[in-house]
Amino acid sequence: MALAEILNERRERRPGIPAAIAELKSFFGERVVTGEDVRRAHAHSTTYLPAQLSDAVVFAETEAEVQTIVGICGRHGCPIVPFGAGSSLEGHVNAPFGGIALNLSRMNRVLAVHAEDLDCVVEAGITRETLNSHLRDTGLFFPIDPGADATLGGMAATRASGTNAVRYGTMRDNVIALNAVMPDGSLVRTARRAKKTSAGYDLTRLLVGSEGTLGIITSLNLRLAGIPETILSGVCPFPTVKDACDAVIMTIQSGIPVARIELMDEAAVGAANSASKLGLDPSPCLFLEFHGSAASVDEQSQAFSAIAAEFGGGEVQRATRPEDRARLWKARHHHYWDVLTLRPGCKGIPTDVCVPVSALSECIAETQKDLAASDLIGPIIGHVGDGNFHVLLLIDTEQPAEIAAAEGFMARLAARALAFDGTCTGEHGIGQGKRGYLDAELGPAVDVMRAVKQALDPRDIMNPGKIFSLS
Amino acid sequence: MALAEILNERRERRPGIPAAIAELKSFFGERVVTGEDVRRAHAHSTTYLPAQLSDAVVFAETEAEVQTIVGICGRHGCPIVPFGAGSSLEGHVNAPFGGIALNLSRMNRVLAVHAEDLDCVVEAGITRETLNSHLRDTGLFFPIDPGADATLGGMAATRASGTNAVRYGTMRDNVIALNAVMPDGSLVRTARRAKKTSAGYDLTRLLVGSEGTLGIITSLNLRLAGIPETILSGVCPFPTVKDACDAVIMTIQSGIPVARIELMDEAAVGAANSASKLGLDPSPCLFLEFHGSAASVDEQSQAFSAIAAEFGGGEVQRATRPEDRARLWKARHHHYWDVLTLRPGCKGIPTDVCVPVSALSECIAETQKDLAASDLIGPIIGHVGDGNFHVLLLIDTEQPAEIAAAEGFMARLAARALAFDGTCTGEHGIGQGKRGYLDAELGPAVDVMRAVKQALDPRDIMNPGKIFSLS
Repeated sequence: MALAEILNERRERRPGIPAAIAELKSFFGERVVTGEDVRRAHAHSTTYLPAQLSDAVVFAETEAEVQTIVGICGRHGCPIVPFGAGSSLEGHVNAPFGGIALNLSRMNRVLAVHAEDLDCVVEAGITRETLNSHLRDTGLFFPIDPGADATLGGMAATRASGTNAVRYGTMRDNVIALNAVMPDGSLVRTARRAKKTSAGYDLTRLLVGSEGTLGIITSLNLRLAGIPETILSGVCPFPTVKDACDAVIMTIQSGIPVARIELMDEAAVGAANSASKLGLDPSPCLFLEFHGSAASVDEQSQAFSAIAAEFGGGEVQRATRPEDRARLWKARHHHYWDVLTLRPGCKGIPTDVCVPVSALSECIAETQKDLAASDLIGPIIGHVGDGNFHVLLLIDTEQPAEIAAAEGFMARLAARALAFDGTCTGEHGIGQGKRGYLDAELGPAVDVMRAVKQALDPRDIMNPGKIFSLS
Repeated sequence: MALAEILNERRERRPGIPAAIAELKSFFGERVVTGEDVRRAHAHSTTYLPAQLSDAVVFAETEAEVQTIVGICGRHGCPIVPFGAGSSLEGHVNAPFGGIALNLSRMNRVLAVHAEDLDCVVEAGITRETLNSHLRDTGLFFPIDPGADATLGGMAATRASGTNAVRYGTMRDNVIALNAVMPDGSLVRTARRAKKTSAGYDLTRLLVGSEGTLGIITSLNLRLAGIPETILSGVCPFPTVKDACDAVIMTIQSGIPVARIELMDEAAVGAANSASKLGLDPSPCLFLEFHGSAASVDEQSQAFSAIAAEFGGGEVQRATRPEDRARLWKARHHHYWDVLTLRPGCKGIPTDVCVPVSALSECIAETQKDLAASDLIGPIIGHVGDGNFHVLLLIDTEQPAEIAAAEGFMARLAARALAFDGTCTGEHGIGQGKRGYLDAELGPAVDVMRAVKQALDPRDIMNPGKIFSLS
């Protein structure tokens, strides 16, 4: 979808919005903010997508308040754009039809920790770092790490994952149940706290990944994991991306329970070298993390080393002390900032395709050729255990020709992922930018999604303009 | 819900059924069977629920045929009851409004095995044992084991799990994508073959557990696991159920990746002793299985032994050779048949609650007291790593007083599970018998489910009378 189309979607604001805001003010007073700075801060976007501001920002503090807000907005047909930390990458917090941004960040309490059951209950506005700080003394942690310090509600809404999904799964796997305020104002709890259930439709999973279009997630019952006794980090260079990917496939096939296995291609390693002066071997690298007992992580890393050697991998550098691990992974942790230094003043636009692991090296190779042919700078990192990789395009977003080149590249990348039976988004979501790709990816299934959306939100007040192409 | 109510639900057959069957015969000839024996075999039930026969059984052989059948039935408003192996336990294959039973067992091909990606694609009518026989030479297997040799389509439809869900998850976790024919006859594929995705609503998980009420699953893309290098089985007696459950909690908390951890209570062990002359210690027992390298399973079982000893557990008997493992687990494998010998001529009625693991021992203790006070025989087994347990009630279903006593017990059991924040069904599904419990369990969420059902199946042709209480 071309940028111009998205911009042109900024249609008439819905007529009921002023009345809704007036009524919201009568309930929430100064917690309804209409100043432009605040509205802009709630519509910022880390992509090239232009900000589309809401008409007001409302700060909710309780589940009951969310019900009140949804009730008011529902009566007036006023769009509601849920907002957690604002770290989503696909324009989810934009308000193309106006309406309110519903800020949930004050709903950030830990409601319960059930250590014996390895679960907790939190409000949707808590961030994962705050949660993990809270949990530290329990010996437990919440393992999903998308990079940004996102809120748990937002992570659920976009079905986020990140670096250690290869071992711990994604938000899909780690939400036991959730509370949500539906478009009619009703509060539903999707499941009880049992580890598994066959009681009716899986509304938990229907709301996880719904990007705020079906309801407002207000609290979550999350699975936790034990903090590993030992964490062993490793880095290993490979002659080619294909060699690295083949080593990944064999690692997974061998059942090594690797906690993280991240690829950086030559360009990404080069960016780290030039920006952070790391002096790394300028070849593709795998960054690894093993979790377990001291004996277990040692066994795992030895097994990996043997596999790496089969595919021409170099020596695996290892570290277990936190400061040494941070040093070893510095190139990976600083990737985003290192890449930005390659073209000062440009924006980094991340892509997000995911393909079957067997197709990964070929998909990356074709993508690298495409980048070269398009004269685009786009270092690649990948959560390669899952077949998910990101090209970080460096674009001068003031230059329409660069935007157009980036859009052309992204369309080809999505088509390539589909040709390998993959998806246009492994973890960022559809938002505004990928709606056309979703249609290409799932065809008739999108009609089923639309029918569900229409049934649950007939007035289209929940984050309108996201996921579905406008007809 | 009392049995009488379910019986009385056999309402008028829908008027379009004869015309639908005539049209189906014109397409499928002798693959439309109306003889009573065949219809009865497709409505059998292993519970006390009475059989409710369809008007015809149709044997489908291809996805396109399923589309034709759904198209015809849709036009005539003829109910469709999907049928795989008939091993479901909650009346899912009954036809309270008449219509057709759609037999999918001839759609039993393995369409693809992607060994590098640890996945396969199968038609819905293949059974798990057939699939695992097919996979044997690949070193991979499909790990979900509900006991019966169910079809994969049926297992997905009921969100089945079983003994090794504690390690490998349930059908929810192991279906990557599926094809389904929707009530309007359209064929949808819910996702691509990538390991993870954030592309739109999770229709895969919406259909997994939908019990045939939203669409007919025709094929599945399944995750596979590596066949473990070593399997170590163990059995360990405990003084009390509470001690055994406490050992389970600590085992899980310690991160021991136990593959199976099953409880048999005193009554279940007693049944094994009397029927199979095993001479077991007449106390609660845990049956375990560890998967991994020889060193790993040894480490795991030693770690478990240390935990068991803390809670008064006896010596852990161990075995790794298949025939020795079979002998060690004989009491568990023969449980159903052993229990039936306690009251010849009676039916075994399995219950299926699941609670947070921390509540398990208390929930079982109260249930045992209830059984004693109700004068009911009901040995207990549990997939205790998940908090799921089954009471196998022995009931003379010819005696209305016994049925009533069983129903009273089951209602109290469901209420007890809910009081512990658990679910009325961990893995069997709602079907006909638990519709009232679902309402009690999830309240307003059931209205959301109904809205989804109404949107996707407005004529209510897909397995009507299941999941939802009739209004």
